[in-house]
Amino acid sequence: MDTGKLESPGPENLGAELHRLIAELFPICRSITGDGFRETLRRLGELVPLKVHEVPTGTRVFDWVVPREWNIRDAYVKDRTGRRVIDFGQSNLHVVNYSAPIRATLTRAELQEHLFTLPEHPEWIPYRTSYYNESWGFCLTHNQLLQMKDERYEVVIDSTLEDGHLTYGEVFLEGTSNEEVLITCHACHPSLCNDNLSGVAIAAYLARALRWTRHRFSYRILFIPGTIGSITWLALNEDKVPRIRHGLVLALLGDAGPFTYKRTRRGNAEIDRVAGYVLGGLPGENRVRDFTPYGYDERQFCSPGFNLPVGSLMRTPNGEYPEYHTSADDLDFVKPGQLAKSYAVCMSIVDVLENNRKYVNVNPKCEPQLGKRGLYRSSGGDAMPRESEMALLWVLNQSDGTTDLLDIAERSRLPFDAVRLAADALRESGLLETCEKH
Amino acid sequence: MDTGKLESPGPENLGAELHRLIAELFPICRSITGDGFRETLRRLGELVPLKVHEVPTGTRVFDWVVPREWNIRDAYVKDRTGRRVIDFGQSNLHVVNYSAPIRATLTRAELQEHLFTLPEHPEWIPYRTSYYNESWGFCLTHNQLLQMKDERYEVVIDSTLEDGHLTYGEVFLEGTSNEEVLITCHACHPSLCNDNLSGVAIAAYLARALRWTRHRFSYRILFIPGTIGSITWLALNEDKVPRIRHGLVLALLGDAGPFTYKRTRRGNAEIDRVAGYVLGGLPGENRVRDFTPYGYDERQFCSPGFNLPVGSLMRTPNGEYPEYHTSADDLDFVKPGQLAKSYAVCMSIVDVLENNRKYVNVNPKCEPQLGKRGLYRSSGGDAMPRESEMALLWVLNQSDGTTDLLDIAERSRLPFDAVRLAADALRESGLLETCEKH
Amino acid sequence: MDTGKLESPGPENLGAELHRLIAELFPICRSITGDGFRETLRRLGELVPLKVHEVPTGTRVFDWVVPREWNIRDAYVKDRTGRRVIDFGQSNLHVVNYSAPIRATLTRAELQEHLFTLPEHPEWIPYRTSYYNESWGFCLTHNQLLQMKDERYEVVIDSTLEDGHLTYGEVFLEGTSNEEVLITCHACHPSLCNDNLSGVAIAAYLARALRWTRHRFSYRILFIPGTIGSITWLALNEDKVPRIRHGLVLALLGDAGPFTYKRTRRGNAEIDRVAGYVLGGLPGENRVRDFTPYGYDERQFCSPGFNLPVGSLMRTPNGEYPEYHTSADDLDFVKPGQLAKSYAVCMSIVDVLENNRKYVNVNPKCEPQLGKRGLYRSSGGDAMPRESEMALLWVLNQSDGTTDLLDIAERSRLPFDAVRLAADALRESGLLETCEKH
Repeated sequence: MDTGKLESPGPENLGAELHRLIAELFPICRSITGDGFRETLRRLGELVPLKVHEVPTGTRVFDWVVPREWNIRDAYVKDRTGRRVIDFGQSNLHVVNYSAPIRATLTRAELQEHLFTLPEHPEWIPYRTSYYNESWGFCLTHNQLLQMKDERYEVVIDSTLEDGHLTYGEVFLEGTSNEEVLITCHACHPSLCNDNLSGVAIAAYLARALRWTRHRFSYRILFIPGTIGSITWLALNEDKVPRIRHGLVLALLGDAGPFTYKRTRRGNAEIDRVAGYVLGGLPGENRVRDFTPYGYDERQFCSPGFNLPVGSLMRTPNGEYPEYHTSADDLDFVKPGQLAKSYAVCMSIVDVLENNRKYVNVNPKCEPQLGKRGLYRSSGGDAMPRESEMALLWVLNQSDGTTDLLDIAERSRLPFDAVRLAADALRESGLLETCEKH
Repeated sequence: MDTGKLESPGPENLGAELHRLIAELFPICRSITGDGFRETLRRLGELVPLKVHEVPTGTRVFDWVVPREWNIRDAYVKDRTGRRVIDFGQSNLHVVNYSAPIRATLTRAELQEHLFTLPEHPEWIPYRTSYYNESWGFCLTHNQLLQMKDERYEVVIDSTLEDGHLTYGEVFLEGTSNEEVLITCHACHPSLCNDNLSGVAIAAYLARALRWTRHRFSYRILFIPGTIGSITWLALNEDKVPRIRHGLVLALLGDAGPFTYKRTRRGNAEIDRVAGYVLGGLPGENRVRDFTPYGYDERQFCSPGFNLPVGSLMRTPNGEYPEYHTSADDLDFVKPGQLAKSYAVCMSIVDVLENNRKYVNVNPKCEPQLGKRGLYRSSGGDAMPRESEMALLWVLNQSDGTTDLLDIAERSRLPFDAVRLAADALRESGLLETCEKH
Repeated sequence: MDTGKLESPGPENLGAELHRLIAELFPICRSITGDGFRETLRRLGELVPLKVHEVPTGTRVFDWVVPREWNIRDAYVKDRTGRRVIDFGQSNLHVVNYSAPIRATLTRAELQEHLFTLPEHPEWIPYRTSYYNESWGFCLTHNQLLQMKDERYEVVIDSTLEDGHLTYGEVFLEGTSNEEVLITCHACHPSLCNDNLSGVAIAAYLARALRWTRHRFSYRILFIPGTIGSITWLALNEDKVPRIRHGLVLALLGDAGPFTYKRTRRGNAEIDRVAGYVLGGLPGENRVRDFTPYGYDERQFCSPGFNLPVGSLMRTPNGEYPEYHTSADDLDFVKPGQLAKSYAVCMSIVDVLENNRKYVNVNPKCEPQLGKRGLYRSSGGDAMPRESEMALLWVLNQSDGTTDLLDIAERSRLPFDAVRLAADALRESGLLETCEKH
């Protein structure tokens, strides 16, 4: 069956919608567990049919254990006048994420060991975490720090670390095949936009678009906390793993940088070829990089025991722009136009994945007579056939069951769409059969 | 057994002979069927032992059917004064090849739809065909067209489209092996020299040379109409297909351009390596290109159901020079020196194919003592051995049954002939055995 | 078991020691057999536990026969005044190596046929041999030749060619595995320093260092006459051949040129990757070249019947510097610093060979939690992990039993030592197991 070219069903002003969703989610204090994550999923559930999973603290997931749930109500550092010189209410980045509760009066020296700043960017608050080592801390601008000259400070973190759950969201969109495309994003960062509300928003809108489109593959879209989320999903869903035929981790898709596709550990999976082809056709200095075992959840999907065909799509990679993991990764840093373009690139990748098939020429000995079927002009002698005719010849010549349409597009240097249309025409004429069941 | 280096048995002035043959064949009005093709084969039969095959109209050949036979006696367009403003007698390109008969008086507007010119080359007549769609037409220079201002014209095409035969010629030259080298050319074009009387003439002279030379492979040389000819041969000779070990389609070998070798669909067949090696050793910007499913009869030989190791040798490829498929592809366009050089390149390819073998070193543990056999100088200490000595060392070291002499020549950067002579000497000394039966 | 990083146990002034050994061995008149070779081995035996083998004249070794033993006491050419115009006592290069005895008075013309000079270097004596063709001759400077104007000369070569033995030396250093590293050098050249006393001295000092170091592989170091020595060893030790896992022929290691590694015949053996990696990390224009069947004993080890993973390490290759095989390859040509650097490169290759292993991640599904094992920092949010942390992630991700540490170093662009240390730490934590028995 033919799914046709997937059209974005979104509104004209998709970039603005994506940015608006990010703005709504921005203030929530997310972490790898807790109510901030739940609230984020609740909002996404208004857009797409999201199933929320709760995994209890203490659940063993491979070498890891689901940690205690973290929630926070307030946190501050007060000077001797009672003024909050650091205030969680102003930015949730001010607290080291997963900080244990504390309520104490400390000397400046004692406090200093728990303070984190960025001297090279004195107006930015850094983002720090301490998930698996019980401790506490505050992040602040370097200029704030320079003004803290009191001898003693009152320190309060009104947080809890208690048995509870790890929460994640999952959208499953059934296709005509039970083979799956896995799309994941980490949704555990607090008030940071590019990392990774951009990925969250685009994944949600991809799910929304695919929900109303006929598609070959089934799509599983995960909104998970980084690392522990993918480990948990893999540990609890090993039965689903064999169905994953392609996968993509989405992150950092709102900045102004060129696109970066990071290959799967396999290096030559179909998703690698498809993403390379789509990025190769875009303007700008887009980059395809080899897999490395650092980054986002592709680290888990591409661990040697799974080695899944899961790549990663970003604009500027983690750590390669100064605003990364700071308060400067804010609503101004991600632009509607950039988000809309990232969404379009994702849809192009999905479109090629959906339409890339292997065919068999059912008439493989010599060329079939295309003219009598109205597929080829009837007079001869011109220098060169048209692009559509060349595409027919290429598809017929290469379709021996080992070559997919993307191979043919790359070998012939014809556009993928021209090759796909030729395959459609040949299939309608009975000259081509698909090798696949669905 | 050893065939030795093939020597061209031709006369000193081979280029002139090739051009003379082309000049003789030039006036004949050939098509994919009919008496022009028969007359061409009759003339070639004076040079080589040609078997003429006649395949009846209506014969099913894979997805095709052998068409009705086309013959033509005369054709013209007369103006109101009775003057032939277009006259088949002046050039057989004036009639669209395979035109149905017509005898009518038409308005200029009615006639116009059946006229073909080349505005960008106003003195040239284009070459057009309509083999599989019954219609008629005239080709003329654009300047001729500009002078046709009468209101009515008398139009006559005295042709027949009747049940008959498709005719082709075949030369078979038995070698010591029943493995075959297939050499084909299309011989269906009317008064055009480069395309493809150059290929026809060179194929005929190759056949003549091979007839009087001892050779390892059997050679099958086909003079066929394009497309339908190779389809017909393949359909009627499927039993012979498995014997084809190498193949070469010859076309466009008389122009002044550099050589172009178009690889087989396999891309790494022995003929690809051999032709690449021979062209690499020639002066000039010669080109080796990947297979594409457009061109000449390699399209059929390389269809996925056959996927034969058949490449194609040309100078400037089809459609890449302005004279292509026009009356400017005439006797002046193809030069004796260019034809002779093309012939020599074909013979070089045949020579390497004939002599390229895999050997086994019968003394594979350490080097044999070449000095005691008189194969190596007796004193030592010089900086480097001679080329002939290096060739002996290379052949001995590499001959483990997996590596052929061309591999060794390329790896050692020694000339193929030096490697071949070394292999001959080692075989005579009993140090080397061939892996092949013949 | 872990061998740790091999440290050179040598003295501070290793270059000077290597040069002193060369200076001691320099005056000895070595050949492929005879007392000069024995005297050389005796001196090496003072440094390392060398076993001396004597193989009788007439022993069949594959296609060769161990030749008669050659010894020489004196040789000269006297003019009519009784003056020695050519005197073996001044340089053993003056006699063509393996010259048969002669005692005669000859005309200048008769003598001329037995004289060898280098007109392009009129002050240098060439080095010539005639091992397998009984003859005699003298080598002299071209300036000497120009002064020989007498009509008659008295010619004496007081040599013997008699049944005796071929002598070679062998050091065997047992490792924890019975898989062997073969290190060989030719020790048959008379007063020539770079070719190959440099290789002899470095091989001896490598053996000395390895003797006192714990190592995984067993090491077999051969001091053999060129060609006939390796043929003899292979013929008499075929049972040991399957144990050779890596090999290196050492020659020409004292000149000032960049390093040259010549690949094994296989071209992709582990020794090829290791030597390429080590040379790639050195300053200067070092070269890795493909195998050719000319050079030193790698010709025999890489003959097709053995095809051993034996490469060759040199500085400037044979025949590529003017002093090669002349009296200018003397004690001034090889410098202590150059010898010391060559020794260090050999040790680096040995170090990587020893430590390059394939591991299996015993926890291959998702990453293990490194933080709880103290292998990873506990706080998150920094832009990039440290090199040591990246090395842990790379080793875990790639260790599926197919990838060795050198692969991982090259893929990750991390130093081999960082990768090795990561593997050690992971193995100690029980997260990694070696694939090998030893």
